[in-house]
Amino acid sequence: MLYSKLFPKTIKETPKDASLTSHKLLYRGGFIRESAAGRYYLLPLGIRVHQKIQKIIKEEMDKTGAQEMVTPVLHPKELWKETNRTSSVGFELMSIKDRNEMEFVLGGTAEEMLVDLVRKFKLSYRDLPFNLYQFSTKFRDELRARGGLLRLREFMMKDAYSFDATEGDFKTEYEKMSKTYTEIFNRMGLKTIIVESDNGYIGGEYCHEFVVESEVGESRFLMTEDGSYAAHEDVAKFSLERKNVSEKEKPLEEVEAVRGTTMEDGVKLHNLPLWQQIKDVLFVDEKGRFILSIIRGDYDVNETKLLHLIKSYQLRHATEEEIREKIHSEPGFISPVGIKDIIEKDVELIIVADDSLRTVKNAYGGANKKHRDLLNMNIDRDYKADIEGDIALAREGDLAADGGGKLIAKKGIEVGNIFQLGFHYSSKMKGANYIDKDGKEKPYYMGCYGIGLARTLATVVEVYNDEKGIVWPESVAPYQVHLVGLDLSDKAVLEKAEQVYKILTSHGIEVLFDDRIEPSAGEKFADADLIGIPYRVVISKKTGAEIEVKKRSQKETEFKKLEDLVKSIKE
Amino acid sequence: MLYSKLFPKTIKETPKDASLTSHKLLYRGGFIRESAAGRYYLLPLGIRVHQKIQKIIKEEMDKTGAQEMVTPVLHPKELWKETNRTSSVGFELMSIKDRNEMEFVLGGTAEEMLVDLVRKFKLSYRDLPFNLYQFSTKFRDELRARGGLLRLREFMMKDAYSFDATEGDFKTEYEKMSKTYTEIFNRMGLKTIIVESDNGYIGGEYCHEFVVESEVGESRFLMTEDGSYAAHEDVAKFSLERKNVSEKEKPLEEVEAVRGTTMEDGVKLHNLPLWQQIKDVLFVDEKGRFILSIIRGDYDVNETKLLHLIKSYQLRHATEEEIREKIHSEPGFISPVGIKDIIEKDVELIIVADDSLRTVKNAYGGANKKHRDLLNMNIDRDYKADIEGDIALAREGDLAADGGGKLIAKKGIEVGNIFQLGFHYSSKMKGANYIDKDGKEKPYYMGCYGIGLARTLATVVEVYNDEKGIVWPESVAPYQVHLVGLDLSDKAVLEKAEQVYKILTSHGIEVLFDDRIEPSAGEKFADADLIGIPYRVVISKKTGAEIEVKKRSQKETEFKKLEDLVKSIKE
Repeated sequence: MLYSKLFPKTIKETPKDASLTSHKLLYRGGFIRESAAGRYYLLPLGIRVHQKIQKIIKEEMDKTGAQEMVTPVLHPKELWKETNRTSSVGFELMSIKDRNEMEFVLGGTAEEMLVDLVRKFKLSYRDLPFNLYQFSTKFRDELRARGGLLRLREFMMKDAYSFDATEGDFKTEYEKMSKTYTEIFNRMGLKTIIVESDNGYIGGEYCHEFVVESEVGESRFLMTEDGSYAAHEDVAKFSLERKNVSEKEKPLEEVEAVRGTTMEDGVKLHNLPLWQQIKDVLFVDEKGRFILSIIRGDYDVNETKLLHLIKSYQLRHATEEEIREKIHSEPGFISPVGIKDIIEKDVELIIVADDSLRTVKNAYGGANKKHRDLLNMNIDRDYKADIEGDIALAREGDLAADGGGKLIAKKGIEVGNIFQLGFHYSSKMKGANYIDKDGKEKPYYMGCYGIGLARTLATVVEVYNDEKGIVWPESVAPYQVHLVGLDLSDKAVLEKAEQVYKILTSHGIEVLFDDRIEPSAGEKFADADLIGIPYRVVISKKTGAEIEVKKRSQKETEFKKLEDLVKSIKE
Repeated sequence: MLYSKLFPKTIKETPKDASLTSHKLLYRGGFIRESAAGRYYLLPLGIRVHQKIQKIIKEEMDKTGAQEMVTPVLHPKELWKETNRTSSVGFELMSIKDRNEMEFVLGGTAEEMLVDLVRKFKLSYRDLPFNLYQFSTKFRDELRARGGLLRLREFMMKDAYSFDATEGDFKTEYEKMSKTYTEIFNRMGLKTIIVESDNGYIGGEYCHEFVVESEVGESRFLMTEDGSYAAHEDVAKFSLERKNVSEKEKPLEEVEAVRGTTMEDGVKLHNLPLWQQIKDVLFVDEKGRFILSIIRGDYDVNETKLLHLIKSYQLRHATEEEIREKIHSEPGFISPVGIKDIIEKDVELIIVADDSLRTVKNAYGGANKKHRDLLNMNIDRDYKADIEGDIALAREGDLAADGGGKLIAKKGIEVGNIFQLGFHYSSKMKGANYIDKDGKEKPYYMGCYGIGLARTLATVVEVYNDEKGIVWPESVAPYQVHLVGLDLSDKAVLEKAEQVYKILTSHGIEVLFDDRIEPSAGEKFADADLIGIPYRVVISKKTGAEIEVKKRSQKETEFKKLEDLVKSIKE
């Protein structure tokens, strides 16, 4: 490609709202432009990188035996109604009607579409397992888009869906996909950490994110020093420290407590440790139920864990008015003790106790009345929970649940994820069955596997850059060689440069040839550094019979024979 | 690929609504399935063909120097408002709002998006010309979809947009694109006819369709025997036959005419030739203007030509009530003579006369009153037109306007089109300029170029099939070799077949290996014929050291050495 003909050229300015390195460099280098917030044009340089990423994904997916196909972008909304996802998805779904008043959603993920396709066929156990994948545009009506490609409202996703007869077969596939993802990202120069995470709107029981550590990432996770455990902060488990469990239970006592409403106010007033206090957080879920979550004072409630325990998908904090008028308690003085006896008749209240309350005796806290506290509260004796379980937020420094030492807090960019779906979809959607050996219809066991291509592209730039620009790994670089012609007004030099361009391209090497006459050497080198192609080759008056080669990732310049460069690139 | 693992397998049934050969065969062969009307899944076999078509298009586009990129699928609606296309497009536009109430349209074509991108850059004459293209999903909210892939509501299109400084440069690009399109379709085995056509909702002054002749096509066009002229019936020009032009003009005369309202009723009553009668057709356009189109009785009005002349985009026939109450005339008795003197005051009436009225003297027709006719009407003397021009519909048998003999009516499938856009978009959209050598801002001269991939795929099947199934051309076949293993319960034969599979794939040959044990030879051969892969290779007890080869397009079976097959495929 001649740089003189390339649309567009680099520019020096950075968009006002650009804070991310990848956004700035991709913009300045001419890889991308914004259409509307979160919706980007991929320009000629940008789409070359995007296609190389796509090719790597395709090659690795094909190796596993997964089969490529593609679904329509518009999904019949009735399918999403079959699985109740029209109301439960975590991203705002965009809906549209056609001229015949048929309703569609713009595809965000395609589980329903795949099941609807597969159930059109009478499958037998012999047809299983299979894994179908596609590259297609996905839509997420995000509240806020980030600048650049890290969080988009519209992007190409590789999404795959596996269909197995048994959980055992599925686990083999899940493991295969996990290894394949690691290899895919490795090939692009990205080292990924496999992080247990929340399945959110997808459904199913477990899933993993592939995360590239980065300060600009939005995935917050906890990992042991030895790397044996990594989990998103939403789901991370840890080992509870046991406190005064051997202490004798003292009599429950109500006392005056003229204090503020914070945990610290309680600690100060009673001069007792924070961990001995009960933290009460009152939520309302999407069904209007009140959820009283209680936990040891030194821990925080993890809303994601709580949602899973109560099988809801949305929580909000109860208002002070609701606490007083519906619960007949008092903000800052809520207590599980006797609370079910004082609430309004029409109120449904569910008490969820964290496991940590089993590690403490003689706890203190509110008494459901202003300026009254209870001392020596003990679970079972003084209050009961409707549900007990793990609703605690893990923190840096906590001990990992299954060994591996202390948890360290990390941030990273989620570039891919894999989900166990189990029977979540096949049980909800009618006819999603195969005929087993025994002649009986059985639902298939499913999984799904996603990679966002544009985010992966931006992540490569976040990892591979320096103060001058991008430093593309060879596997995804838009071109392999950036040929810079200097002194091109000299006919002999121009001819030499054109010859080198011809020879390189004849060897199948992708070359961007800066054939412009006007710009100075400095401007051309700055452009080459910004665009970040792995090999910079200079032809000038000085280079004579050789060529000047510099790797973008190194400082040294070498004079070489052209054939030696060809050899080292082709290796 | 092992056929035993392929999703899905062939089936014998044909969908109830399938009338097109391509629909039936692609469905039965397992290439496609419908999601909703006009929205299809491309299954693993289908997407392989689709990708081969895409690769051919990409290779040929890249050869021309055009640069690939991609725009978002959702286009900000404000852009379409800039060019007034929200109201004027010929396909129903689908609109959608995001959670922030921003309006988008689902892209049908991307002229505005490309101009909006290009105007973000300060272009100089040095940056021109360039041509940007993309492969992306396009949406057309068609009133009716056809079964299969011939007319879809959602499909991948290759759309390209050229930006030139001058009309001369543009014409060079247009010619280049025309040749490229011919080559693209040739490589897929499709012989295309370049047909002048209507630019419709795209804008601009001229355009051409690339049409593959086919009985199931919806493009109706007229072509001379020698092929020197081909034009869509909407725009076809022809040479008007001169009638009684040398006759002396006789005095205008009003007579009683108790007759019906058809042209034939007039011919019978007056016993004069049809061509001497004036045909009056009254339309109402989208602005509410009445358009009286008049033409020689033996011709018909071409609404597309009429729309262009009056610069409107929609016509409907006036109702009988409107003719009586607004025009104060009479259905079946309308006449241009004196009509402007009798209409309602607030009515705007435009008289458009076809050129054919200059080829006849002393015409007859209605008198704007029931059962009254006029004889000896002559243009200029008795009536005047606001606009005169060509609004006549060409028919088979008419003589082409520029020689080449008689026109023949043909039908075909439009697989691609190229459009001159001129300044249509760059003049309407602010800032769509480049800085010329003289330092002045000038709008760029544009063109656009489209190919629908799925329709092209279906067209290949319409052209290449027989009573047993599809007969893919090698360039777009999903696999090159269909390896059929027979007697596979015999371990030696199975091993041999697996070895052949391995050797073929090691040579980079794409093989679909029917490794199933149960089905009979007949069933396997029927599947191979239906799927239509170019080479069928059989390994069985009988084949011994050789292999049995049959080309799908031929009847003969040959016994060959494996290496000879490899050679002939690689050639």
